[in-house]
Order: sequence, then structure tokens, then C-alpha cells
Amino acid sequence: MVLVDRTNHHLFQPLLYQVATAGLSGSDIAQPVRTILRGQRNLHVHMAQVEEIDLAGRSVVFDFQRYRLEYDYLVIALGVRTNYFGNDQWAKHALGLKSLADAYAIRERLLAAFERAENLPDNHAERTRQLTTVVIGGGPTGVEMAGACVELGRRVLKPEFKSANLSETRVVLIDAGQRLLSTFDPELSERAKRDLERMGVQVKLGVRVEEIGEGYVVAGGERYEAATIVWGAGVSPPPLVKTLGSQGVALDKSGRIEVGTDCAVAGQRGVFAAGDIASCTDGAGVRVPGLCQGAIQMGDHIGRVIMADVAGKRDAVKPIKYRDKGTMATIGRSSAVADVGGWKTGGFVAWVLWLLVHLIFLIDLRSKMTVMLKWIAAYVFYKPTGRLLDAPKA
Amino acid sequence: MVLVDRTNHHLFQPLLYQVATAGLSGSDIAQPVRTILRGQRNLHVHMAQVEEIDLAGRSVVFDFQRYRLEYDYLVIALGVRTNYFGNDQWAKHALGLKSLADAYAIRERLLAAFERAENLPDNHAERTRQLTTVVIGGGPTGVEMAGACVELGRRVLKPEFKSANLSETRVVLIDAGQRLLSTFDPELSERAKRDLERMGVQVKLGVRVEEIGEGYVVAGGERYEAATIVWGAGVSPPPLVKTLGSQGVALDKSGRIEVGTDCAVAGQRGVFAAGDIASCTDGAGVRVPGLCQGAIQMGDHIGRVIMADVAGKRDAVKPIKYRDKGTMATIGRSSAVADVGGWKTGGFVAWVLWLLVHLIFLIDLRSKMTVMLKWIAAYVFYKPTGRLLDAPKA
Repeated sequence: MVLVDRTNHHLFQPLLYQVATAGLSGSDIAQPVRTILRGQRNLHVHMAQVEEIDLAGRSVVFDFQRYRLEYDYLVIALGVRTNYFGNDQWAKHALGLKSLADAYAIRERLLAAFERAENLPDNHAERTRQLTTVVIGGGPTGVEMAGACVELGRRVLKPEFKSANLSETRVVLIDAGQRLLSTFDPELSERAKRDLERMGVQVKLGVRVEEIGEGYVVAGGERYEAATIVWGAGVSPPPLVKTLGSQGVALDKSGRIEVGTDCAVAGQRGVFAAGDIASCTDGAGVRVPGLCQGAIQMGDHIGRVIMADVAGKRDAVKPIKYRDKGTMATIGRSSAVADVGGWKTGGFVAWVLWLLVHLIFLIDLRSKMTVMLKWIAAYVFYKPTGRLLDAPKA
Repeated sequence: MVLVDRTNHHLFQPLLYQVATAGLSGSDIAQPVRTILRGQRNLHVHMAQVEEIDLAGRSVVFDFQRYRLEYDYLVIALGVRTNYFGNDQWAKHALGLKSLADAYAIRERLLAAFERAENLPDNHAERTRQLTTVVIGGGPTGVEMAGACVELGRRVLKPEFKSANLSETRVVLIDAGQRLLSTFDPELSERAKRDLERMGVQVKLGVRVEEIGEGYVVAGGERYEAATIVWGAGVSPPPLVKTLGSQGVALDKSGRIEVGTDCAVAGQRGVFAAGDIASCTDGAGVRVPGLCQGAIQMGDHIGRVIMADVAGKRDAVKPIKYRDKGTMATIGRSSAVADVGGWKTGGFVAWVLWLLVHLIFLIDLRSKMTVMLKWIAAYVFYKPTGRLLDAPKA
């Protein structure tokens, strides 16, 4: 069995926004794949980029020495990347948040902006720009980033800056739709908006981004000067998936791979897709959502199907049945929204629930303990730990 | 009071080699200066580069907007940088270890080399190079890096790599002198050499480096193929210190600022120097060494001198008296050498002593607890935590 990944680690993505806002270190939410799977004797792990999936040749080509590996079973779980909807020139100004490198880039920009604000003379016009962050996209990533950014400036860092007044930290959250968290219950969307506004975030709904450049965003006819711009507005499958389309694999309109209730690609023996790049409707007609829990359940199901197939009992495996364990998004300190088994709640209760669930799913005990310790430090003492800036490379 | 630094953090340098060898995260050994000093109401912190020290004009010029700040008292504590002794073209191949960025660069090179070794076909000649690290310089940095590198490959990572045999991890430690740890007692130098060799490090003494290029080192007429090359052979003050020399400040032959027993620069009212860039002989004729403890004691002393000066009682301050609290260097798991108050010891006892001293001096409680937790995880389970590699930027 061979596992190939471009990075060497598994990343707990739901907490990535905390790395981006200096609350946690990368190593708190990511573990080397080799370490997680060190007990698997029959598994080889390779850190490599897949350059080609050749379905007719039943093989995969890696970047190292153009090595070609033939497969009996292939599970495609490439994940998605930030999508600028045809405006790729925006990428260098509006940072996406999908990888650790993305999170470090946002963190560096955010922290450097506060430092620059502190270095500017009083009442300098540029200070406003340095203290402004624009977050584009009102999904969970956007909501969590906006809340964490405003808290970072106004509460965490404020006492440590003497020249710049960090109460003036400004965060603008922009979404083209009519409500935040569009996949949640409308009541929770409203709650999230109210809580964010109470914290000082300006929420702009029904507003389209028209232009993004160095230090500014134009949206809904208005120009926002902002040193930090975060893009959480959309994702799409990587280019490699498109090459499957031209090899006869059915893709849905957002470019994801269509799979059956066995998570298999129709017409391709032994080929499966899981996670955000798979478009799957379960046995009961429910669409498996592009969430952590959807990916985990698809992965589990594929494991069962392959084992049954090897044993010659593939027909015995029932169609995948998606179990919705609930959805939640954190808004800030002591505030979140949660929808668990139809129970909709917000505020402190939802926040504690969020803390517990996210701790439980962190992969190893050491990380759980470190993250808990850091959260306690952050909550009680407002001392986040991921705040290191190196001198600019010169 | 104004504190200016190129980075935003204080770095606990003695543990930097553990960040470079994936044992710790940067945030475990560094804290933002603002956080450490948040209680100081009369202190402004600026993250900036000092571009000019103008002694005649009694002012300092920063890089941001060429801002000029006049001083009554100036404490120069710039630290030193890696010195390639006129071979600056070696810098991109042989990595120094002075900053967090340096440590991350070494870590990335080291971990990527193991990953490349795993991707290469069996018995491929290139594998040997990928598994080889050359460390240049037999001082504490070199000794600690060599020990940690060989353990990382042979003990920590070995069980997780299935194709490459990490028992073949090779570390060569090169020094031009006749013994390791030349500032320690010769008996401890011998002990360190024996312990390193037992762990599998090849120690080459009395050997001069002749050439360094992409993936190789030539030393003592021999060529070493190595994917990772670490330079711990020397340091020198930054160029800014040289400009003081041309303003009439006495520099010693290694370019450090000569200071009196009050840590002040002769002939310059209110100007002091501390740490590795200061050359100081104490009241009893003992040279203050370029160690953590020397820098801390000089800093303390300068504080006392300035306070007395402000109070008009400068003459009441006695000359600095260096207190040698002992020196130690760790060699590997369960092994170190220590010289504390004339008591020379090695092995497990010295190692426990080393652990305790380094934990005590870490700045805050949260870091102490996290580092302790990580060390326990590393010692008991061989699970270091700083092992994340991102996909190469493409």
C-alpha cells in the first residue's frame, strides 16, 4: 500500500484559522503522516507530487524521477484549492487559507501590519490601512477569520502597543450572498452576524468584489484600504482532476469527480474518490457535504468496499449512508454557533461545545494537551503563542 | 525608553539546535518582546532595522521612514552573525544557526533529504548523499547539532521509513582545532568526542575546510557528499559595528566593541555595549565570555550603571564581576558534558542537569510546560514535533 502526499503531514484544517491568527503553531494542528501511520507495516509513504493519473494504463506518475507506479486500487483524495473565479491575479493580494504555508503567510502579513502601524507617526493616514483587514467570503472560514482578526487587534495585542491605538483595528467581512454561513440555519446566520458586529466586525452582505490590488479592495462600488486581505470565497479541485475529465470520468459543474454510493468512479475498475473533490449522493439521496466528517465517512466507506472487493464480496457492502454529526463555527472568545442533530444554539454553550469537539478530533494526545494549554493561556491571559516574526530577508 | 529589534521576539538561543533538528517549534523557545515587557509602562517597542548609529549626533536612524531618534543613553546589543571567514559564497550551501529562520532552513533541508532518500530506488548512489550531514565547527553548536542529527535519523525517524535504511544516516563533524569544545576542560572534550563516536558521528579533528559547493564539502583533502551542511565554525559582529570603528570606537581584533568594567564605550558619554559584540574584561581581570550568562550579567550591570548615572551616583557602582555559573553542552539522548563550579561531569547526570537548567531559563511558564511535555514525548515515544514540511512552492 502506498500513500502519496505533496506535504509530509496530515493537517487538521478546522483549526487552520487559529494558526493564521497567531493562536496556535503549525505543529499543534498537524502531524507527519509517517508518524500517524507508523504502525502500518504494509504501508509505504512518499512525499511527492502526482504529475499524472493514467486511467487506461492503471498507473500514477510521480514527480521524483518521473516514477510510474501501477495500481490495483486508486483512491483520489487530492482536496481542493483556493479558487479566485478567474481572477488569479488577485491571489498575491488576497491570501487563501488551505495549507500551513497559507496560514503562515496570513499571520506574517497581519502581524507585520500591526508592527508597521506602531512605527508610523501619530495620526498618519497610512495607519488606518495597516490596522484594516478585509475578509472575503462569509462561510465558516471567513466568519472565523473575521472574528479572530478583530479580537487579535482589539483585545490580545492592544495592551502591548503604545503608539498605535489598536482599538481602531478594523475588520470588514464581505459576502456576495444575503446571509453569512449559508449552509447553516438562517437563525444561526443571523446570530453569527449579530455577534460579529457586536465584536466590531463590519459585515457587508450582498456585495460583490470588483477589484483587488496591493493594499485595497473595491466591492459594491466602495474602496477599502487594507494591509491584510483574506480570501475565503471559494475552492475548486486541482488541475489534475480536469485531466480525468478528458479520460472519460464524469465531473460535476464545479469540476468535482462524480462517484456512486460505493464512492467509486463509474466505468473505472478500482478507482475511488473521497473528500472535497468527490461529488457523492448517499443511499438515502442525501448529498455528502464538503466537510471533514463527509471526507472521513467516505474514506471509511472506501476502505470497507476495497476489503470486500479483495474478498470477492463487494456486493455485500451497503451504499454509503451519511451521518450528519452537526456543524459549528466559532465566532470569537465565548461565542460560536452550532447545529447538532437539529439542536440549534449560539453563544457560550456553542463555544464550549466547539472547543470540546475540536479537541477530541485532534489526532494525538500530545497535541491535545498542548492545544488545551495554549487555549487556557489565550483565554485567561490573552497570550497567544504563534506571534513570531523574523526579520525581513535581506 | 525605546527597544528596537529586527525581529519581534526574544529567542532562547541555547535550544535553537532543537528547532533545527525538529524537536521543538519556534514558538516553544521564542516569545514576542512586547509580551515579555508588556508590564513596562514607559517602554516603546519597535520592530525595525537600525541603519545608522551616529555617535556625534547622539542619534540612531531606523529603516522605517529613515526615522532619527536622539538618545541620552544607548545600549548596543546587536549580537553576532555567522562568519564564513571570507568565503561568503559558502553561505547558501553551509547553513548557519543564529535565528529562527536559520533553524527552519536547516530543518527543511534535513527532513527533505530523508524524504528524497525514501523516494529513491534501492541502492541508488544518491541515497548516501541524502543521508549524510556534515557539521563544520566543534563548539557547542556543532557538537549539539551533530548529536541531534544522528539521533534524528538513526533513532527517531528510522522506524517510519520503509525503503531507505536510516541506520545508514551519516554525520561528519569537522573542526580545524585539536579537540572539540575548546573552551571546556580537555577531559570533557575527550568525553564528548567518545560519546559522539559511540552514537555514530565521525569526528574529524585538525581538518580544515577547503571548499564547499552544492551537496559537498572538501576538507583535509577528502571530499564528503552531503545533502545537509551546517556551519557552526564562527561568528562576527554585524557591519553596523564596523561603522562605529570609523567613528572612533575601539574594536578588538575580532571586531567586537571594547568596553570598560562599567560596560561603557570609552570617550562616548552614555554609550554601552553588551553581549557577544562587546569585548569586556571584568574588575578581577576575567574576560566575560560570549555566552548567555555573560550577556545577561552585562545587561544587568548596564541597567545598574544607568540608574546610578541618572541619580548622579555613577561612581558608586563597582566594576562588573563575572560569575561563572558553569558551562554545559548536550550530546544526545541521556548524554551531555557539564562543568559547574569546577565539578566536571558527563553522561546521564550532566544530561539531567542540562535539562533542568534549560527549562528554568525558558522565559514563561507556558513554554516551560510545553517544552517539558514535548521532551517527555520525544524521550519516551521518540515523537518529535517539529517535523512539518510544506509542498515545495510551485
